[in-house]
Amino acid sequence: MTFTIDRDTLLNNLTILQKGLPNKTPLPILTAIKFDVNEDHLLLTSSNTDIAIQVFVDDKSLNVVKAGKVAIPGRYLIEIVRKVNAQKVEFQLVDDNLIIIRADRSEFKLKLMDVEDYPEIDFLDLDQPVVLDSQLIKTIIKETNYATATNEKRPILTGVNFKYNNDNLYTVATDSYRLSQKNIKLRTHSKTFDIVIPSKSLDELSKILDTVHEDIELYINPNKVLFKMNNILFQTRLLEGTYPDTQRIIPQEFPVVIPFNKEELLQAVERVSLLSPKDKDTNYNIIKLNLRPDHVVEISSTNNEIGDALEEIIPSGTVTGPIIKIAFSSKYLVEALKSFSSSEITLNFAGEVKPFVIKGNLDQDLLHLILPVRID
Amino acid sequence: MTFTIDRDTLLNNLTILQKGLPNKTPLPILTAIKFDVNEDHLLLTSSNTDIAIQVFVDDKSLNVVKAGKVAIPGRYLIEIVRKVNAQKVEFQLVDDNLIIIRADRSEFKLKLMDVEDYPEIDFLDLDQPVVLDSQLIKTIIKETNYATATNEKRPILTGVNFKYNNDNLYTVATDSYRLSQKNIKLRTHSKTFDIVIPSKSLDELSKILDTVHEDIELYINPNKVLFKMNNILFQTRLLEGTYPDTQRIIPQEFPVVIPFNKEELLQAVERVSLLSPKDKDTNYNIIKLNLRPDHVVEISSTNNEIGDALEEIIPSGTVTGPIIKIAFSSKYLVEALKSFSSSEITLNFAGEVKPFVIKGNLDQDLLHLILPVRID
Repeated sequence: MTFTIDRDTLLNNLTILQKGLPNKTPLPILTAIKFDVNEDHLLLTSSNTDIAIQVFVDDKSLNVVKAGKVAIPGRYLIEIVRKVNAQKVEFQLVDDNLIIIRADRSEFKLKLMDVEDYPEIDFLDLDQPVVLDSQLIKTIIKETNYATATNEKRPILTGVNFKYNNDNLYTVATDSYRLSQKNIKLRTHSKTFDIVIPSKSLDELSKILDTVHEDIELYINPNKVLFKMNNILFQTRLLEGTYPDTQRIIPQEFPVVIPFNKEELLQAVERVSLLSPKDKDTNYNIIKLNLRPDHVVEISSTNNEIGDALEEIIPSGTVTGPIIKIAFSSKYLVEALKSFSSSEITLNFAGEVKPFVIKGNLDQDLLHLILPVRID
Repeated sequence: MTFTIDRDTLLNNLTILQKGLPNKTPLPILTAIKFDVNEDHLLLTSSNTDIAIQVFVDDKSLNVVKAGKVAIPGRYLIEIVRKVNAQKVEFQLVDDNLIIIRADRSEFKLKLMDVEDYPEIDFLDLDQPVVLDSQLIKTIIKETNYATATNEKRPILTGVNFKYNNDNLYTVATDSYRLSQKNIKLRTHSKTFDIVIPSKSLDELSKILDTVHEDIELYINPNKVLFKMNNILFQTRLLEGTYPDTQRIIPQEFPVVIPFNKEELLQAVERVSLLSPKDKDTNYNIIKLNLRPDHVVEISSTNNEIGDALEEIIPSGTVTGPIIKIAFSSKYLVEALKSFSSSEITLNFAGEVKPFVIKGNLDQDLLHLILPVRID
């Protein structure tokens, strides 16, 4: 097996495959990237217990002298290609378990793993994909994925629920203390589905989408979903179980609505959090919001050991409803505000012990909900 | 005690004082910054077991309504001033143990520590300072400090030796595997001295010198040294003991001299190190350098588990002397090369089992030495 390829092209593709390499694995062969070298293209594969990635490379710089299959230790290979200072890289199999990589005046001999050990990966390829724009998927991930649970008490909550029916895509993530939901109308027509994608897989997919700008086909079966791009297949397992019905916890009426400049609110909350005490249960900073009769909003925290912090904010528009006092985790509000594109947002309150909702003027399909905490 | 001051001015000064705050301390009062508020200036102090810093602030924005002394929790104060979005900050003592900090619409009440508990710090103020340019001190720190020992087996080696006599300043650092030395002629005339400054203190001083461009007076006694700037006093304890005589381990004759472009050598060494095995004793990567009869230099590493790496480098000028093979830690060579300003350097060899020396065309006063390792 012998071929040469442009170094930048190879590195860009390896960077995508890196996201499929396991951090640690009981199956050492998975630390390798599988190279399937054909006459006019490469097929490169990486995989772990959650994700499998396959990249099709037919760059015009590719020159295959002799076809073949090898499994090259992934992280070493990527480091080498990243560090070499050359326009072209040459790969040459010298015997069954040794490959020479040449680039300018650098030469690396890497021991190979047995390519026959590499598991066959069964990429879905069914009919009737759902077609989504890559940037829409990236936006949905940014808007929802941070709200998934990080602990494994309820495994189903460590993923984002994607539900499709009647041309509507409903996505929701919650860790049971806060919730983020995005519902949009799609032009595509497909079978209905209701799946939960692991948060970590969405993180890796999002990084790949940084460099991909095209329509993406989703192929779904009960255990996994395949995101099919022009040259990249990204497949992830799905979480098993039924996602809870979150609709019933979202209040429908909001007697109090306060509009804010997002950046101003964000900065005030971050300052108040500097001194705020930790909530014992969730280990997050608890702050208080107080709408005064003069419609100035006070945000404050009290820490018996350190001291107090108080911020006054003038709402950015007309306040609706009576005065209100409510306490909640500042971390939740900060993360939620950062997920909004809008510069103007509203806080919508249903009552002092009911969840409150954040909406943005430019994020019409997005809703964020935070549960308050009771304080004395 | 009540005063107002420009927020940026205060933050810049607090950032300097931060370098004197202890990471952890058995003496809680040292987590505070001492404010000595006088009619027309502030005197701010921080200190830990190694370092004491005092800053004199007479900025024209300072407006003292009432003088006084307080000890304010340092890290909280700095975080607050860093995060507030205001042009001016106001401090007001409300009772003996509570201060209010106001900035725009933010208000913080911080509990104070008892200022009477703050230790009296005895800043040296003797005759006959040594006067050094701040950028010269910064350069010396950059060129030597990284070569100090990080483990405490021989405490004296965790500092840099500064020795002055006959108008010459000799500085040297070594961890007993490599050594960095800078000797320069000074215009100043002072008493001779021979001191060892802790590496960590030099790190903190170097950060302060990023923003200071002026002559600095050094006052020295057997236990400590004071760096006196216009508005900043930086005092550090000295290491006790006699610094070893390092002159005798520096070879005087170099039969082999190889010139390199520094960047080219650095990149080749970093690439070869990707696969190089770890030396058991020092945990650093061992690589081999081989001057071939055709005067091409090979740099290589062998790792029985992963594979081999080989780089060829053409020296950047005429090579002197016979062929040579030598092995050493790549980490030492990488760190040394990065400390040189020169784009052209020479490796100077006294023999295959003797220390070799690095010099730079633009770093005439600087010498770096690395001990080779024996390999089979």
